[in-house]
Amino acid sequence: MQAWLNKLSCPLPDSLRTPVETARFELEHALPGIPVQLTVAPDRGDAWELAESPDGWVLNGGETGLLYGAYRMIMDVLSGETLRPCATAPRYALRMINCWDNMDGSVERGYAGRSLFFEGGRFAYQPERMQELGRLLASAGINVLCINNVNVHEPAQRLTEDFLPALSALASLFRAFGVHLMISVDFSSPLRHEVSTADPLDPAVQRWWTETADRVYAEIPDLAGFLVKADSENRPGPFTYGRTHAEGANMLARALKPHGGVLVWRAFVYNCHQDWWDEKTDRPKAAYETYMPLDGQFEENVILQVKHGPFDFQVREPVSPLLLGLRRTRVSMELQLAQEYTGQQIDVYAMPPMWQEIFDEVPADRLDAVAAVSNLGRDANYTGHPLAALNLYAFGLLGWDPEQQPEAVIRRWIRLTYGFAPAQEDALCALLLGSRRTYEKYTAPLGLGWMITPHTHYGPNPDGYEYDAWGTYHRANRDAVGIDRTESGTGYLSQYPEDFREKYKNPETCPDLMLLFYHRLPYSFRMRDGRTLIQRIYDDHFEGCDEAERMAETLKTLPFPEPDRQVILDRADRQVHNARSWRDVINTFFFRFSGVPDVRGRILRP
Amino acid sequence: MQAWLNKLSCPLPDSLRTPVETARFELEHALPGIPVQLTVAPDRGDAWELAESPDGWVLNGGETGLLYGAYRMIMDVLSGETLRPCATAPRYALRMINCWDNMDGSVERGYAGRSLFFEGGRFAYQPERMQELGRLLASAGINVLCINNVNVHEPAQRLTEDFLPALSALASLFRAFGVHLMISVDFSSPLRHEVSTADPLDPAVQRWWTETADRVYAEIPDLAGFLVKADSENRPGPFTYGRTHAEGANMLARALKPHGGVLVWRAFVYNCHQDWWDEKTDRPKAAYETYMPLDGQFEENVILQVKHGPFDFQVREPVSPLLLGLRRTRVSMELQLAQEYTGQQIDVYAMPPMWQEIFDEVPADRLDAVAAVSNLGRDANYTGHPLAALNLYAFGLLGWDPEQQPEAVIRRWIRLTYGFAPAQEDALCALLLGSRRTYEKYTAPLGLGWMITPHTHYGPNPDGYEYDAWGTYHRANRDAVGIDRTESGTGYLSQYPEDFREKYKNPETCPDLMLLFYHRLPYSFRMRDGRTLIQRIYDDHFEGCDEAERMAETLKTLPFPEPDRQVILDRADRQVHNARSWRDVINTFFFRFSGVPDVRGRILRP
Repeated sequence: MQAWLNKLSCPLPDSLRTPVETARFELEHALPGIPVQLTVAPDRGDAWELAESPDGWVLNGGETGLLYGAYRMIMDVLSGETLRPCATAPRYALRMINCWDNMDGSVERGYAGRSLFFEGGRFAYQPERMQELGRLLASAGINVLCINNVNVHEPAQRLTEDFLPALSALASLFRAFGVHLMISVDFSSPLRHEVSTADPLDPAVQRWWTETADRVYAEIPDLAGFLVKADSENRPGPFTYGRTHAEGANMLARALKPHGGVLVWRAFVYNCHQDWWDEKTDRPKAAYETYMPLDGQFEENVILQVKHGPFDFQVREPVSPLLLGLRRTRVSMELQLAQEYTGQQIDVYAMPPMWQEIFDEVPADRLDAVAAVSNLGRDANYTGHPLAALNLYAFGLLGWDPEQQPEAVIRRWIRLTYGFAPAQEDALCALLLGSRRTYEKYTAPLGLGWMITPHTHYGPNPDGYEYDAWGTYHRANRDAVGIDRTESGTGYLSQYPEDFREKYKNPETCPDLMLLFYHRLPYSFRMRDGRTLIQRIYDDHFEGCDEAERMAETLKTLPFPEPDRQVILDRADRQVHNARSWRDVINTFFFRFSGVPDVRGRILRP
Repeated sequence: MQAWLNKLSCPLPDSLRTPVETARFELEHALPGIPVQLTVAPDRGDAWELAESPDGWVLNGGETGLLYGAYRMIMDVLSGETLRPCATAPRYALRMINCWDNMDGSVERGYAGRSLFFEGGRFAYQPERMQELGRLLASAGINVLCINNVNVHEPAQRLTEDFLPALSALASLFRAFGVHLMISVDFSSPLRHEVSTADPLDPAVQRWWTETADRVYAEIPDLAGFLVKADSENRPGPFTYGRTHAEGANMLARALKPHGGVLVWRAFVYNCHQDWWDEKTDRPKAAYETYMPLDGQFEENVILQVKHGPFDFQVREPVSPLLLGLRRTRVSMELQLAQEYTGQQIDVYAMPPMWQEIFDEVPADRLDAVAAVSNLGRDANYTGHPLAALNLYAFGLLGWDPEQQPEAVIRRWIRLTYGFAPAQEDALCALLLGSRRTYEKYTAPLGLGWMITPHTHYGPNPDGYEYDAWGTYHRANRDAVGIDRTESGTGYLSQYPEDFREKYKNPETCPDLMLLFYHRLPYSFRMRDGRTLIQRIYDDHFEGCDEAERMAETLKTLPFPEPDRQVILDRADRQVHNARSWRDVINTFFFRFSGVPDVRGRILRP
């Protein structure tokens, strides 16, 4: 099982050491009849250029460029396209996967089985699967793999010490695929090594991190760097010592700098102990408030990693105002392939249309890198749901060229993975293109979010987070629902540029799907199409559920090979069950509040 | 730490083998100046009689009777009462504690630390603590101790096999205290021993259970019997084989009968996969529907153990209609000392007033036994909260004489435990007497129940069970709340005798505290005192929280010895926090629905 590379039947030999060797091997075995001459231009990095020559093709590029070019050629051929001369380079130098794997073998928010890397508190993996994974990542253009959870639990806190040889061995396996490992580190680590503080301005702390970086890079010279979640959801961080996040990040960055490593610093900082009575605090404002004052203060090898939305990977969120605001900081946008809030790789949820919407709001050149929380696990198919592999593949392509159209990416993935006849390809493509909107319809309405079962994050629970400390409220009552985030409310919208504010500030003109994110509205509010808000909520939920049922029917008609077919159909049944549950609970919840019956007389639970 | 027996400073010797030896030892050491002659009347069992003689006192009774008489004399003296001649016998022959301890050391719904008996999948206990526990149980008149969870997980399924020697050794430790062990068994056990079915009418199954009972009683001749949870919350049972619960229970009872053992069969059967749309099914009706048709069909050594209310140990429930209905079945009423839904031994919750209310509805002679889910654990004080020991003590006294008044029991317990000055005793007694009503006020209103956080069962979550499969709904909407359980509704009330139905069927005359258990009412409903229902809900919650705050203040003024004081004050703080949380969430929940402000202008969260 190699996801979209199933057609690459030739096993990879252990002897591959460099991306160029891998490129050569893959071309020879996958395209035996096509002569390709490889020429290395060491300074070109990931870029490559394909040209015709009298003897066949010439592929020129950096060492990794040749690898990416080779996979592009192979996948062009395998997906039935004609080879054409071209030249390309990735938009983002870092295209990163963040695994939230724990060393006990569990995966935080993992929906594809246990960890590919760890079990029982130690490294434990199949070398062949590491090669396959390297192949998959490289073929999609992904070049950084952070292997451990940003919540760094014991014993992952010792990756830079006891486990360094094992980490180094794993890094070797990925080297031939141009994939650089990264590790998540714990900001308070010095405290576990006889340093009395983790204050970033303390020389002993700085020394400890410098020595640690030196030790790690002596073993793994091409480690991508460190990833840090600090002062976030009860993790330790600079705030403990009265320091800013720039002071914290820069201290670590300086330790990495001599080795060419980057320090990726997550911007996921908010008050997770909010009193739900508190109407002043508005969680989406938190990241901007914390980081905008620091713009320009970060070392150049710091990358601030900002989630695409201001909350946490809900089905629909506006783009984070921090992504639009920062100008003098290197920024990575964090996406989430793991379907934490988006169906947990049970419900079909193809992400490229969502990402396209995000890039419609964030100019691509505002970003320096992209990162995605992994949807990988030990399941034979790597992603739990076979169709979820699309998201991993598409993320890689997006990191190379964010302007690619979702439909093209999806079609290419279907051709590589299943090679369906055109009508079937059309059906699956349409299903995938619409899957996110379907999921959105049957879950929390119109940008509201968070009506999901707490902790597990699957299935409906409209008040589940309402009286809690997480800052995620809808404040529905018998008259109205939502939070006013305009200037007359929490002022969140003020964090955006003028044109953005104009687009959303008025409920009469705010795009429907974001309406309840920005506005508190009565159920009787008239949508632009004449329906009331409450009717729109009902309609969306009936429609979303109907669509999920039709998706399940469509999936039954498609000739998926086994074992994919069984997995897909089983999960489709579960998705339908989930969709019905959401429809009924959400509609009932709002019917109980509003007392307004459905205009079409459909049954609402009293 | 020996709870109410702290004043018995003399450690118990290992040599005690019989209740009479223990009685003699305890009297000699606790009342050294008081001459007592013990005379055994073997046929009198637990009964005893104390008479004056020229040389002092004569205590006459059965073997265990002497033990109970001895403890009664000791506790009379320790609590400052005057010894008086008396004769007494217990109302119920079986006074049982059901521990929900798992062999991994956890305790299901345990709030006093880990198991006293088990750890790491095996028996693991301190023999001295077993003796202390025997002393505590005997001093309260409790004579049966079921040591393992009714949900029988591996390896407790092998208590009748591999662990039988260890079980026998534990039974020996309790023998000197007149405490008979009992074990929970799994109805499907034969399946794990090469019997192809667990069908109670299958001869091979009957043979397996007979041999098992023979084997167990050969080791432990005085085992009280087996306890079974069958066809309940996904446990196996006779329904799998199309058999009735009489057929299932009788088969086991016949295996025990030659040995004098009882088969305790829990009546906690209901549909735990209910569709919340289903308004016909009403969970409280389930036990009556299942067991009333079987009345008279059970073997005489079967005891049907029925929870005191029709749901599951909510703060306020009516008495189970099954307890009033059964006439030709031996019945045990199950109480719960473990404060699962009642504050988890963090919040103070003295149960005797609640039990008195129950006995006001169930004539004491309707019952053949009483059982209580244990509140015990490995904490030094045995019950987590020192004041929770009252409930264990009081349960024992209630099993002996259910007509004892709560205040008398509480005062006796305070005198034994703390020996406070009269004003302090009065203060603590008043606090304990009112503690259940206080908890009731700040949690779910007027008999509604179930507005608690799912799974953990601590803290508010008004919709937590509303869209779930557990059959526990309030169906609150903008107009009304509650379920009509009268004849015009689910018909639950029809399961009761005429006089009971009359008392509750009319919302105008139904006792306030049970109003929302039986009726669906608009928020504008006028209570008899002129307040609206919604105002009554607000008032109760403000009052309950104020009372919790005053309780915490009172507890600070009382001279508890350490370490009790620290534990009590810490938990009082947590109770106040919990009470405020309940007050705010429940009031907000109903305010959001009703839109009705508090008449006294207190702040309700919008």
